[in-house]
Amino acid sequence: MGEGREFDRIRRILATLGDIAEGAGDDVAVIPEGDGNLVTSVDSTVAGVHFRTDWLSAEEVGWRATAAALSDLAASGAAPVGMLLAWTIPAATSDLELEAMARGVGALARAAHAPVLGGNLTGGELLSLTITVFGRTRRLVTRRGARVGEAIYVTGTFGGARVALTSWQQGSTPSPAARVAFARPYPRLAAGQWLVARGATAMIDVSDGLGGDAGHLAAASGVGLEIDLARVPVHPAVHGRGVRGELAASVFAALGGEDYELLLTAPEGAIDPAHAEPAAGVSLTRIGTVVAGGGARFLLDGRPVALEGFVHG
Amino acid sequence: MGEGREFDRIRRILATLGDIAEGAGDDVAVIPEGDGNLVTSVDSTVAGVHFRTDWLSAEEVGWRATAAALSDLAASGAAPVGMLLAWTIPAATSDLELEAMARGVGALARAAHAPVLGGNLTGGELLSLTITVFGRTRRLVTRRGARVGEAIYVTGTFGGARVALTSWQQGSTPSPAARVAFARPYPRLAAGQWLVARGATAMIDVSDGLGGDAGHLAAASGVGLEIDLARVPVHPAVHGRGVRGELAASVFAALGGEDYELLLTAPEGAIDPAHAEPAAGVSLTRIGTVVAGGGARFLLDGRPVALEGFVHG
Repeated sequence: MGEGREFDRIRRILATLGDIAEGAGDDVAVIPEGDGNLVTSVDSTVAGVHFRTDWLSAEEVGWRATAAALSDLAASGAAPVGMLLAWTIPAATSDLELEAMARGVGALARAAHAPVLGGNLTGGELLSLTITVFGRTRRLVTRRGARVGEAIYVTGTFGGARVALTSWQQGSTPSPAARVAFARPYPRLAAGQWLVARGATAMIDVSDGLGGDAGHLAAASGVGLEIDLARVPVHPAVHGRGVRGELAASVFAALGGEDYELLLTAPEGAIDPAHAEPAAGVSLTRIGTVVAGGGARFLLDGRPVALEGFVHG
Repeated sequence: MGEGREFDRIRRILATLGDIAEGAGDDVAVIPEGDGNLVTSVDSTVAGVHFRTDWLSAEEVGWRATAAALSDLAASGAAPVGMLLAWTIPAATSDLELEAMARGVGALARAAHAPVLGGNLTGGELLSLTITVFGRTRRLVTRRGARVGEAIYVTGTFGGARVALTSWQQGSTPSPAARVAFARPYPRLAAGQWLVARGATAMIDVSDGLGGDAGHLAAASGVGLEIDLARVPVHPAVHGRGVRGELAASVFAALGGEDYELLLTAPEGAIDPAHAEPAAGVSLTRIGTVVAGGGARFLLDGRPVALEGFVHG
């Protein structure tokens, strides 16, 4: 776990719960069954914290909440089994908005083969959607398994969602490509399963920025991650939006946030990145090497570049 | 499903989701595994809707949220496997309050053998706790299995929580017994498992009042429930609080709400109520008989008495 008020509060809750919560703290919870594992995870999307209704359509809010929840399954290598939806709906929310949100959830549920198994609905002053996801995997991968000497990879590209966020915060309208990156992330479920089958040893989904989540994986595995900043794949929208120069674009992308791509480690040579796109529908890029020590270091021409994590609520 | 805005909205969401949610709508969702069933359910507790911080201590809020979530497992006859906790915590909530809430969750988690497997924490303007519970059962009981001619039973007593609620709403302080009924309900997990093992055919936990939930069970099973109002076990606090006369006390108890007791049906003679308390820790009372037709009818000396359901957010 990293730094910041939310993490402090989680630590405080876990310390209070003591031994009754000794299995908690990972990205997914594991319920062993027969010859496999049922994995489950919960994620909340809250109005004013994770989205603003003047930025996203109700349908996009539903899609994005579902993508964020399923992304944790993707990072464990699990195939989806289903979801539970817990809605808090203010009295002022119209039925049309509610239906549009449900359409967004349903579209991704259908695409990801993650049926809605049940849920809960309550009134409340603040719109929120808490999604519990379930999946199954024979071999469970967590953020803890990285070993010194292994290769580091990422799926997809980084920084697109941050471009959209920056545009909105500056009062302008993001480009369609940047908007899609923020509003319609696609959880890397097929890629997660493909990567685990090919020997991925540690994996995490990148929601706090590559800088932040690389640090989380390094800390959990007790290793260091050396990442070549020049190799971080940059979303095309980053170049279009006032970010000038390759270094600036790479730093912007690595700071990222809300990318919902996968960061993983695997033994040298176990995975051929060229096979990822045809087999799992997303590009895979080698960005560094696991080293002894701790923390994530971003290098440019072999020299460390300072990054700050991207913090959200 | 019954009437009211929340139920309309749930129907609207399910209609929008269509076939991707065809398994949803029951009290618990079922994930088949090997020779049994993993059952799961989600329940939200929201400040200002399900509790007021001037009524309950933070520890009681945590306990009660956990009890409400586990009560759905109890009604399916499942043994708890664990829980996920999704918190939304306003910036103004102190660490002491947060720890007290976690203590309340932890105390019941420990008592119910329901370990905390993971969770999520986010900021947000409105305090809420959404709990996903998991359990296992070989034979799954739902609200759908009641058959004409069977006996109707309830666990425990009714109306205690409503006494506390009424006191607070009138600006007075509830008696300790009434307060405990509202603030520290105990989910009937052992009773649920015991009743299913002895042949219960349909079961529901009573959170909307006996009047409301008997109607839900009747509708789901496609039968009528005839309940003798005089046999409904009344919480002792009901008599202490300005409710005068046996009829008034029984109506008050049956209207109830937030009782978290079990209502169930079973073949005549399959269950001996006298064995419930020593075996499952709670009294069991025969209150009526399943009949042909639909709906729940409350009778006094053989004549119907009108009740309204207890509606909350």
